Amino acid sequence: MPVPIILDCDPGHDDAIAILLAAGDPAVDLLAITTVAGNQVVEKTTLNARRICTAAGITDVPIAAGCARPLVQPLYVADDVHGESGMDGPSFGEPTVDAVAEHAVDLMYRTLTGHPEPVTLVPTAPLTNVALLLTRHPDAAAHIREIVLMGGSTERGNRTPAAEFNMFVDPEAADIVFRSGLPVTMCGLNVSHQALVTPEVLARLDGLGTDLARICAELMTFFAATYRRLWGFAAPPLHDPVAVARVIDPEIVRCVDASVAVELRGEYTRGATVVDLHQYLDRPVNAKVAVGLDQERFWDRVIDAVDRLGARG
Amino acid sequence: MPVPIILDCDPGHDDAIAILLAAGDPAVDLLAITTVAGNQVVEKTTLNARRICTAAGITDVPIAAGCARPLVQPLYVADDVHGESGMDGPSFGEPTVDAVAEHAVDLMYRTLTGHPEPVTLVPTAPLTNVALLLTRHPDAAAHIREIVLMGGSTERGNRTPAAEFNMFVDPEAADIVFRSGLPVTMCGLNVSHQALVTPEVLARLDGLGTDLARICAELMTFFAATYRRLWGFAAPPLHDPVAVARVIDPEIVRCVDASVAVELRGEYTRGATVVDLHQYLDRPVNAKVAVGLDQERFWDRVIDAVDRLGARG
Amino acid sequence: MPVPIILDCDPGHDDAIAILLAAGDPAVDLLAITTVAGNQVVEKTTLNARRICTAAGITDVPIAAGCARPLVQPLYVADDVHGESGMDGPSFGEPTVDAVAEHAVDLMYRTLTGHPEPVTLVPTAPLTNVALLLTRHPDAAAHIREIVLMGGSTERGNRTPAAEFNMFVDPEAADIVFRSGLPVTMCGLNVSHQALVTPEVLARLDGLGTDLARICAELMTFFAATYRRLWGFAAPPLHDPVAVARVIDPEIVRCVDASVAVELRGEYTRGATVVDLHQYLDRPVNAKVAVGLDQERFWDRVIDAVDRLGARG
Amino acid sequence: MPVPIILDCDPGHDDAIAILLAAGDPAVDLLAITTVAGNQVVEKTTLNARRICTAAGITDVPIAAGCARPLVQPLYVADDVHGESGMDGPSFGEPTVDAVAEHAVDLMYRTLTGHPEPVTLVPTAPLTNVALLLTRHPDAAAHIREIVLMGGSTERGNRTPAAEFNMFVDPEAADIVFRSGLPVTMCGLNVSHQALVTPEVLARLDGLGTDLARICAELMTFFAATYRRLWGFAAPPLHDPVAVARVIDPEIVRCVDASVAVELRGEYTRGATVVDLHQYLDRPVNAKVAVGLDQERFWDRVIDAVDRLGARG
Repeated sequence: MPVPIILDCDPGHDDAIAILLAAGDPAVDLLAITTVAGNQVVEKTTLNARRICTAAGITDVPIAAGCARPLVQPLYVADDVHGESGMDGPSFGEPTVDAVAEHAVDLMYRTLTGHPEPVTLVPTAPLTNVALLLTRHPDAAAHIREIVLMGGSTERGNRTPAAEFNMFVDPEAADIVFRSGLPVTMCGLNVSHQALVTPEVLARLDGLGTDLARICAELMTFFAATYRRLWGFAAPPLHDPVAVARVIDPEIVRCVDASVAVELRGEYTRGATVVDLHQYLDRPVNAKVAVGLDQERFWDRVIDAVDRLGARG
Repeated sequence: MPVPIILDCDPGHDDAIAILLAAGDPAVDLLAITTVAGNQVVEKTTLNARRICTAAGITDVPIAAGCARPLVQPLYVADDVHGESGMDGPSFGEPTVDAVAEHAVDLMYRTLTGHPEPVTLVPTAPLTNVALLLTRHPDAAAHIREIVLMGGSTERGNRTPAAEFNMFVDPEAADIVFRSGLPVTMCGLNVSHQALVTPEVLARLDGLGTDLARICAELMTFFAATYRRLWGFAAPPLHDPVAVARVIDPEIVRCVDASVAVELRGEYTRGATVVDLHQYLDRPVNAKVAVGLDQERFWDRVIDAVDRLGARG
Repeated sequence: MPVPIILDCDPGHDDAIAILLAAGDPAVDLLAITTVAGNQVVEKTTLNARRICTAAGITDVPIAAGCARPLVQPLYVADDVHGESGMDGPSFGEPTVDAVAEHAVDLMYRTLTGHPEPVTLVPTAPLTNVALLLTRHPDAAAHIREIVLMGGSTERGNRTPAAEFNMFVDPEAADIVFRSGLPVTMCGLNVSHQALVTPEVLARLDGLGTDLARICAELMTFFAATYRRLWGFAAPPLHDPVAVARVIDPEIVRCVDASVAVELRGEYTRGATVVDLHQYLDRPVNAKVAVGLDQERFWDRVIDAVDRLGARG
Repeated sequence: MPVPIILDCDPGHDDAIAILLAAGDPAVDLLAITTVAGNQVVEKTTLNARRICTAAGITDVPIAAGCARPLVQPLYVADDVHGESGMDGPSFGEPTVDAVAEHAVDLMYRTLTGHPEPVTLVPTAPLTNVALLLTRHPDAAAHIREIVLMGGSTERGNRTPAAEFNMFVDPEAADIVFRSGLPVTMCGLNVSHQALVTPEVLARLDGLGTDLARICAELMTFFAATYRRLWGFAAPPLHDPVAVARVIDPEIVRCVDASVAVELRGEYTRGATVVDLHQYLDRPVNAKVAVGLDQERFWDRVIDAVDRLGARG
């Protein structure tokens, strides 16, 4: 039986592929898509979610816009990485898929409490919506099976030397999630940097021959240029689908138990996820932390999902 | 025309008197009472709000319970100050006034948007509910005339050497409020410590001869014992009504413009309100800060309100 | 028998008077004057020490220049308060008293270890020299009877809302001193703001009729203008002599035992002395903290010292 | 002409090999060895320096003991890594090489100012002595050619998830050094973890057949057990000689220019070296940071040095 999930995202090139993976893979049942400010302002990330759903024919999954800014600090967007639209590259027409007139947190809460079994939250964005859900609706926790998120790093960051983007944008929200007592799995940069869109991967996408595959290839081509320019990567990493892949098949992403703390106070390290792999700090385990990726299986699932959705179109 | 207000509180001895002042003084129109965790857990502060409303015959003001814990950190209650019930002293029967089945933040939002003119928020508790309102409902800001709060200090704190209780309990919420861009007036310890329940004040209460006055006197007697034991005060300060009094008659509480920052990172100073009375820090003014109290007028309004409500009973 | 002391200072108008009090009062034996960067750069504070010693005929007390900058952070001087020279006001000729060719810390160490009994350190400046002494010469501690310092505050600061100048300039040095385990007495702003150079005090100085008294009056007149301009004081406070007065006669400065922590990490509160007068923090007592000043006795000692030195001239 | 260096260390197994490399390689001229508290208390690290010099016949290099504790915080030793003696493993007799009766900082200063050309400092320990030198003797800076240190990391730490041991023990001293304006080269864990004492390396040591080589092998065997037990390393890393090797032949250690900040305030990240390899923080370059090790050349120099000294014995 497919795992019911809610995807909380800020598309974003890699979020777009995460949506496709979540909608196109039979192992998960995508109940809702919620958006938040992050890669771009929430109006743009919501528009982008509608665009990719329109392109992929995902018409039966409600989309709701959430928080326009982080809990405590001002918003910092990643337009240097994702462009002015937040999802630059392909040209999209006017989306035909609409967002619902409901706040993301309300849709999350309604979906969680309305589902017969606990639901997995898959945040691939700053954790503002999720933290707000837990604060506003403490009883939601009982309906959450686990939180499998993309964010953080066991190593260096990608927005400061110490902090990964999603954590950097809303460290207090991240802190709330990691200290929530819920089962949390963190898929960080250390693993997502193994999910590289190599020429071989691009060739497989191209080979699908569908409109959707072409859009994906265009997204990846833009993203590749960003990663080459900003970080000198030969191929761009597809961060967000890693979290979805972990839910689809836990064996794709190898994890270890660890304590994870979010640094809130550092002068240069705010937003760092301090992952205690060697029990230096004498803190209890509060997360599963991704440390390895089965790249072959990962790409098989991604390509299959794009293929499945594209064939439907 | 009376000023419409919403009182957000955590009764609490002094919150109880703030409720009476807000309900009993004709200069304000008390639209709603919302409760939050602070002096005690939210179940108890809500029960106490119902108790004092029952005792005072305040039956037409909706009461709604809000957040059970601060935004980011765990809850810290003040049972050493307010006792096991949060409002020890008098014995209350089963309250006949009920709370509504709505979250405090929803009642706030509905009240704000339903009122024909902007409404003044008067928080006399940790600012969790108010911060959540601003985060969840950014459009609420347009309906808020100003926020006149009890909390902070221009001098020392009362929960640590640097931090006043309401700020100490939820510093992130306080930070959100002070950086919201809304007009904020801070009535802190430096002024509330001038609102002392002297024997003369107690005698005036006693002289009213009503049941409600007797309950107030019992509350004050318990509170006096606390302040004598913990801080060596000869008479206890009535913090929370000061904020209500400021709304009732701005001349009761003299204020100056200043920048106020909430210290979030200090090792020993977290929750301190850093009030820049001498422009040391080159930060813009973001608050009016209370620096003086007209004690005579203050007590006249408090006693009058208790009298008015008591006579009604 | 007079109490042997070393005065570590950064003259500075009030440091100058502290030097006169220490040199002119028979209850203390001034063994050495050491200087440090603070109110001005160390070259200027050293020159100022030589100037006031020359003016007062203090020729038998070695003066040595010490640290040119704080331990960890860059130097911040108080030229807005003390002027370009660090001791603006009177005009001084070329001083005839020289500094010794020895680092302040070496002179301190040699003086301490050469004296037959433990010596009291009286720092009235950033604590850089003292911290360096304790770090470089751990065995010096055994020769220190106590440290009686001017700095910090139980209330607000005077360089930021939270931090007093001496603490603000070198918080790490202050932290080292307060955690040294040595007996420390802190005379802070809360008490030094009671040592006001009122017109009556000025009149007494004038009445002495000596050249030295005239110089003192000129110093005070400049300082008065500063305090009026920056803080609206009607009369300027003479901070530094308070610490000397405490050594001369402990009854002049009433103290209480308390734990004192120096805030090193706050965003807005770095350099604050967190004085735990109500045992909020469960930390051991590490200091005596000044809470009251016997103004009459204080001014009698100051005037007498200036008179005694002036008459000698 | 050999590069004149002063080695500031806290032996320590890897410090011992660093001493041997510095004394035994003709490319450097070891002018002095100074010791500091770190891996063990300074009495033990000094004794260990004398022991290894005795064992290696290094009799013409002055050894001086320095600071017994970090500048600001209490001492934290690494007895879990280096054992009770700080250099457990071999049994040493009573050393015949003595330390001089001079503080490390004084020996450093005298050596620096007495040498005809600028001298390279090679700290392989907490930077307390070096920071104290710069604070107490600002004019020493003009005699320092560069500071090539072992410490920090571009990646994770080894005492907390974020902090390497030397930085963790004295973060303020590290901050002083990195902000000194002097040329600083940082050889951190990211490179020292490539200097692994593999069975092949051990076999080469054994093959030398000298008493000194045997002692080295015993040191490495103990160290290997530590690294296996604490971190699961198959072979132990020889951190400290990497810094010496960088001075001997810069091509052994590949470096890049970067800004390096020491995190002083983090709750979980204090002591982290924040190395800005991607110019995230808009801070000026203040260090060369090691990013690659030529392992073959490195081990050749180490083995040669041990061989040369051992053959002399």
